[in-house]
Amino acid sequence: PDGAAAREAGERHLRLTKPPGSLGELEALGARLAGMAGRCPPPVPERPAVLVAAGDHGVLSRGVSPWPQEVTAEMVRNFCRGGAAVNAIAAEVGARVLVLDAGVAGETEPHPLLRRARVRPGTADLSRGAAMGREEAARALLAGAEAAGALLREGADLLVTGDMGIGNTTPAACLVAAFTGRPAAEVTGRGTGIDDATLALKVRVVEEALGLHRPDPSDPLGTLAALGGLEHAALAGAMLEGAARRVPVVLDGVSSCAAALVAAALSPPAAGYMVAGHLSAEPGAGAALEALGLRPLLDLGMRLGEGTGGLLAVPLVRAAARVLSEMATFEEAGVSGG
Amino acid sequence: PDGAAAREAGERHLRLTKPPGSLGELEALGARLAGMAGRCPPPVPERPAVLVAAGDHGVLSRGVSPWPQEVTAEMVRNFCRGGAAVNAIAAEVGARVLVLDAGVAGETEPHPLLRRARVRPGTADLSRGAAMGREEAARALLAGAEAAGALLREGADLLVTGDMGIGNTTPAACLVAAFTGRPAAEVTGRGTGIDDATLALKVRVVEEALGLHRPDPSDPLGTLAALGGLEHAALAGAMLEGAARRVPVVLDGVSSCAAALVAAALSPPAAGYMVAGHLSAEPGAGAALEALGLRPLLDLGMRLGEGTGGLLAVPLVRAAARVLSEMATFEEAGVSGG
Repeated sequence: PDGAAAREAGERHLRLTKPPGSLGELEALGARLAGMAGRCPPPVPERPAVLVAAGDHGVLSRGVSPWPQEVTAEMVRNFCRGGAAVNAIAAEVGARVLVLDAGVAGETEPHPLLRRARVRPGTADLSRGAAMGREEAARALLAGAEAAGALLREGADLLVTGDMGIGNTTPAACLVAAFTGRPAAEVTGRGTGIDDATLALKVRVVEEALGLHRPDPSDPLGTLAALGGLEHAALAGAMLEGAARRVPVVLDGVSSCAAALVAAALSPPAAGYMVAGHLSAEPGAGAALEALGLRPLLDLGMRLGEGTGGLLAVPLVRAAARVLSEMATFEEAGVSGG
Repeated sequence: PDGAAAREAGERHLRLTKPPGSLGELEALGARLAGMAGRCPPPVPERPAVLVAAGDHGVLSRGVSPWPQEVTAEMVRNFCRGGAAVNAIAAEVGARVLVLDAGVAGETEPHPLLRRARVRPGTADLSRGAAMGREEAARALLAGAEAAGALLREGADLLVTGDMGIGNTTPAACLVAAFTGRPAAEVTGRGTGIDDATLALKVRVVEEALGLHRPDPSDPLGTLAALGGLEHAALAGAMLEGAARRVPVVLDGVSSCAAALVAAALSPPAAGYMVAGHLSAEPGAGAALEALGLRPLLDLGMRLGEGTGGLLAVPLVRAAARVLSEMATFEEAGVSGG
């Protein structure tokens, strides 16, 4: 990001017809958007798009979630047919939906909303060995970057990241623990809503995986391959593509936040293009955002994924850009005291 | 609100294709919207409107704000010309803007966006006597109700309340203290951003006013007349009209929250139609919302008023209604495990 453009936005905010600082976080966000775009006022994103990356997880066999694996493919179909929460919320904020099959285990059928780039049909059990090979992780990263690139070429000017994968809060917790150094118990949550016994098992599985792989955060690709999911890899790739194209990337929940840690480890400046859409109820999300230095815009106790929480923040991002381009200055408006 | 419709929404949420409760506060909000509309799914608000009530304040002569009184009329002109924050944010969320001159001291010119119903040119100094007479308070209430009624007749299906009035966080603090029983120091804040000395003076002025009037919260009109502003009265009237018409009323900052206490004291069921758009940085707002039993949707450190924080919550309200009407159930989507 361009520090001069960000500073210019901060100075412009002092001349606009309102008490200095009275728009709170919206002012800081506007300055960040100016820095991302390299100009002030920053453009108002007109064509947001959500990329929902989907994958399955070998670690599901350890019993970390009560939901059956086939739900991942079933939900991919639901996304394509427009019946999921992500569809309703994307429609509300005017966002295009693109689903990416990065590694679903079950069948997915061709559909205009679905990009099929399956690297493998789900990961291996990360608590017993590497979730995937390094080359597979790299291919999934690339699949995500290509999907994001296609969206941007087709006109998208803001990306929201979303995920679908039964069991995927377990690899997300592993990645957050690996990159933040926090203990498993602090970053592992109830996912879709598991009971105390399942949560205790899930924490043990994350601990076992960390003990088995001894991840080195200075080797982001190796860490991702050992502990991650194919959708996390794809989302990290999408984030790198967004940052390279200087487009704001709005993060959703814990899977997006875990992918953001991977992306920022691979390329630290990428974090400058990330906007934390919301604070997921899943504890790993807050831990990851803190490590990334990002403050979430919303805190609604959501824990659905799919991009839903990120999409809800899109009007806030647009409003932050709009006030910088549409508000009058004290001088222009003839208002006293500016 | 209709408890049966709200319960039906809660049950519908369990059948929609997502883990139970995973949309967090959005689910509770959806149930409230169903209760307000008396049906499930509730209608998605398509034509939001923000009513920005403006007034001036005799207590400004005590030095509670550094801004000159003429800024109120100047900002009314800025609203009409489209240069204020409320205009930019209303445009973002597709809301109509109506400005109500309920008691501005300076000149306001006729304009299609301005409804002129000035009860008096600003209040008297509430720290030395009643801010206005009971009859004046009632007329300002009615002016707000009529403005809201006009918006609803012309198609608005969701109201956002906004305010403009140099010095108006002082009467807002007085009203919050009077209706919640909290001490002045807890509910009085920095408004547009006053320094420590001015804040200390402002707290003393609020304390003096409470000591002078000894407000009786069981006499809401008398409390409003003694300690309020003409814009607070108008907003309370607008809230009562919205509730009577079963339309959601999204509250903005401390002036709206103070008006909400007046409205709920006059008619307790009115609180059932209020949605707390955001938590203002002004401490009286949180105190009022707690007394009203409302949880704010946003917390962005904003303290501008005009309806800006309320407007930013409109997409969340619409999304809460949309998921109830647009999402597929597990059965409809053929997704396992519901």
